[in-house]
Amino acid sequence: MANAEILSIGTELLLGEVLDTNSKFFASELAKLGIDCYYRVTVGDNKDRIKSSLKQAFDRSDIVLTSGGLGPTADDLTTECIAEFLNLPLVLDENVLKEIEKLFSERNLSMPETNKKQAMRPQGASVLPNPSGTAPGIMWIVPNEVLAGAGVADPHRKRAILTFPGVPSELVHMWNQSGAAFIADNFLTGAIFSIELKHYGIGESALAEKYSALLEGNSPTVAPYAGQGECRLRVAAKAATMEEARALVMPVAEEIRRESGWLCYGQDDDTLEAVVGQLLIQHNLTLSVAESCTGGLVSKRLTDIAGSSAYIKLNAVTYANEAKFKLLGVSQELLDTHGAVSDECARAMAEGIAKLSGAEIGLSITGIAGPTGGTSDKPVGTVYLGLFANGQLAAKRLNLGTRLNRQEIRFRTSSAALNMVRLHLLSRNLVVQ
Amino acid sequence: MANAEILSIGTELLLGEVLDTNSKFFASELAKLGIDCYYRVTVGDNKDRIKSSLKQAFDRSDIVLTSGGLGPTADDLTTECIAEFLNLPLVLDENVLKEIEKLFSERNLSMPETNKKQAMRPQGASVLPNPSGTAPGIMWIVPNEVLAGAGVADPHRKRAILTFPGVPSELVHMWNQSGAAFIADNFLTGAIFSIELKHYGIGESALAEKYSALLEGNSPTVAPYAGQGECRLRVAAKAATMEEARALVMPVAEEIRRESGWLCYGQDDDTLEAVVGQLLIQHNLTLSVAESCTGGLVSKRLTDIAGSSAYIKLNAVTYANEAKFKLLGVSQELLDTHGAVSDECARAMAEGIAKLSGAEIGLSITGIAGPTGGTSDKPVGTVYLGLFANGQLAAKRLNLGTRLNRQEIRFRTSSAALNMVRLHLLSRNLVVQ
Repeated sequence: MANAEILSIGTELLLGEVLDTNSKFFASELAKLGIDCYYRVTVGDNKDRIKSSLKQAFDRSDIVLTSGGLGPTADDLTTECIAEFLNLPLVLDENVLKEIEKLFSERNLSMPETNKKQAMRPQGASVLPNPSGTAPGIMWIVPNEVLAGAGVADPHRKRAILTFPGVPSELVHMWNQSGAAFIADNFLTGAIFSIELKHYGIGESALAEKYSALLEGNSPTVAPYAGQGECRLRVAAKAATMEEARALVMPVAEEIRRESGWLCYGQDDDTLEAVVGQLLIQHNLTLSVAESCTGGLVSKRLTDIAGSSAYIKLNAVTYANEAKFKLLGVSQELLDTHGAVSDECARAMAEGIAKLSGAEIGLSITGIAGPTGGTSDKPVGTVYLGLFANGQLAAKRLNLGTRLNRQEIRFRTSSAALNMVRLHLLSRNLVVQ
Repeated sequence: MANAEILSIGTELLLGEVLDTNSKFFASELAKLGIDCYYRVTVGDNKDRIKSSLKQAFDRSDIVLTSGGLGPTADDLTTECIAEFLNLPLVLDENVLKEIEKLFSERNLSMPETNKKQAMRPQGASVLPNPSGTAPGIMWIVPNEVLAGAGVADPHRKRAILTFPGVPSELVHMWNQSGAAFIADNFLTGAIFSIELKHYGIGESALAEKYSALLEGNSPTVAPYAGQGECRLRVAAKAATMEEARALVMPVAEEIRRESGWLCYGQDDDTLEAVVGQLLIQHNLTLSVAESCTGGLVSKRLTDIAGSSAYIKLNAVTYANEAKFKLLGVSQELLDTHGAVSDECARAMAEGIAKLSGAEIGLSITGIAGPTGGTSDKPVGTVYLGLFANGQLAAKRLNLGTRLNRQEIRFRTSSAALNMVRLHLLSRNLVVQ
């Protein structure tokens, strides 16, 4: 089975100025194809280090994917370094040059001389088109005699190099349009199939304990991952064909879903907000949210979903007490007696937003995201969620503790709030969990 | 000058399941200390590959920072691999064991036998305490004779290894509390100073052209970076002391700020939402936002800022036309004549939210975030921003084009909206830019 190595090129990565989402994208795409990736390496815009990293990658890996260093400026060195490492001249690709010139003329600009560099490629290399930018890459099975000439170990094995610009959207586009198919055509002999089962309301160790027997298996493998208040169980298997791999994974995945019940809210790209949206559509219900400490985050997450206008009509961020009073009808007496961060206020806000908007379900969030505003009774991280549905009211207190920062408290609160709506929709009763 | 290498350990990284924020954190912290980082490497939970990566890192770098592989399970191999690579036995640290047992007993749990592994360390290595988790690391100047015994190149140079768990919050805590000072004490002989000047409203190439002369300098270096609709200019210099480095950077940074004027909204960790907040406080004004296509994102960004309750009282997400009508008083006639995505509607929403909330400034956003809902006249990516202040109204149309996805359109729209408020506050007149 072929294996791949990811080489990210750019001093900005070594200075920590940019988060390397490209490597994560490549890694997850390779995993989907069933291509092992043993190494990810990042180097700066330095010729010697780029060339020695290329040498190492060619020595130990079959497929080398690079990102970055394809721009028009002097510190964009990727193409040049590949040519030097492989002892090949750089040649100008007239067709690529025309494409680049066209891009500029479409914007009524003339092409700067420096962009000519982007039309150069090592002699013999084929082009990896970039439909959305000026920097095409190369996509190339390097001939064995070229590998031998460059002193690559085991030069008779098939080796490929694909180069991508560092701009994530362009890289993704190029991968989806050309790169993935090129690799599949040239290297694929088996397949991997995996499912991630997303859990909410159970910790990583409890989940690992619950499925300890499965965690010891190796076909499929089952592994837990935790992050941002959620847990995922990844079930994966490798086999000669995708069908066979799938057949190994599915029974185990189904067993876990059955066993986990409401703790498992979805799989793979599912999100709490998407699942809540699906349930609302399924039950033909609308939801309205009144937020205080989350400041719009719950609303933002719900409306991240395309088509959410079917079930979201009106949300409110009632940060000030006056807004809770004026817009949601939370009485001044209630606020004076119990405070804005209280079970009572959460209930009143949930009812108030539902009545204001006419939505069947009202959700509210009021709490202390910090860093200041906590008391001994209600420290930072104290949040009340309120839910109004079917004429009934429920509330729940979260104690998110002192270890999380403001953003983490807000995010975890938003997940807990979405999950509260999800559990209600699953049972159609007011569930407080 | 000492240099460092970052080694991330974990198969989940090679499967693309987790974004490696730890490496970015280390890289930016090293840059702050003025320690060069030439390589970042990621390997999976595989003994041979971890050991060969350790060997390579010790051969070419002075400081090795690892993250991941310190957990209690069988695939947590970091400590074991370091001991094997350095030919040292693993010894049990009784003090660390007691700490771990204490953590469990505080939670009324008994420590599983497997966690004992987390109290092991290579003989002679000192502990890097982990105040917030069960996995301490090591923090160690490796003796020259140990380096020589392991066959490390140039064993008489000073080498350090620091290991951190993969959990980002624990890693950050350990770095801030112990790691950074350990490196500074043992390796620092010079300093780097840098400033990032954040620009909004100018593209990367225009910015590069504007400052082309500065971009050619090398003390300080000036380099542009672009992302998410913004541009940054990084001005950096290295010198014997922080003071000297700062003296090289500041005059150039000040020149750029002067030259860029309103295009430069801040530096380093400044965000548009924080700058808008500061301006609101400075002018003693409040802001209210009515959002349609951004669905709460502008409100979320504004309230990301601690203390934002001083100037944000009430925001609304008026997704449905009915909500625009009912809450903001946008007339049915206006909606029928011009549509919800129009200059007129944006103006009416801005005025409506200001009047509803009593805020001095009303901001509105209405547009088509896609993927559906576009027309030939108003394709996906068409957004109107409205601003109400001092009894005046202004609106602006954004054409974000067809290349961006829903999330990108929403994010860029939110930035443009925040910038519209910023420009207004800078001039105290309604500026449409």
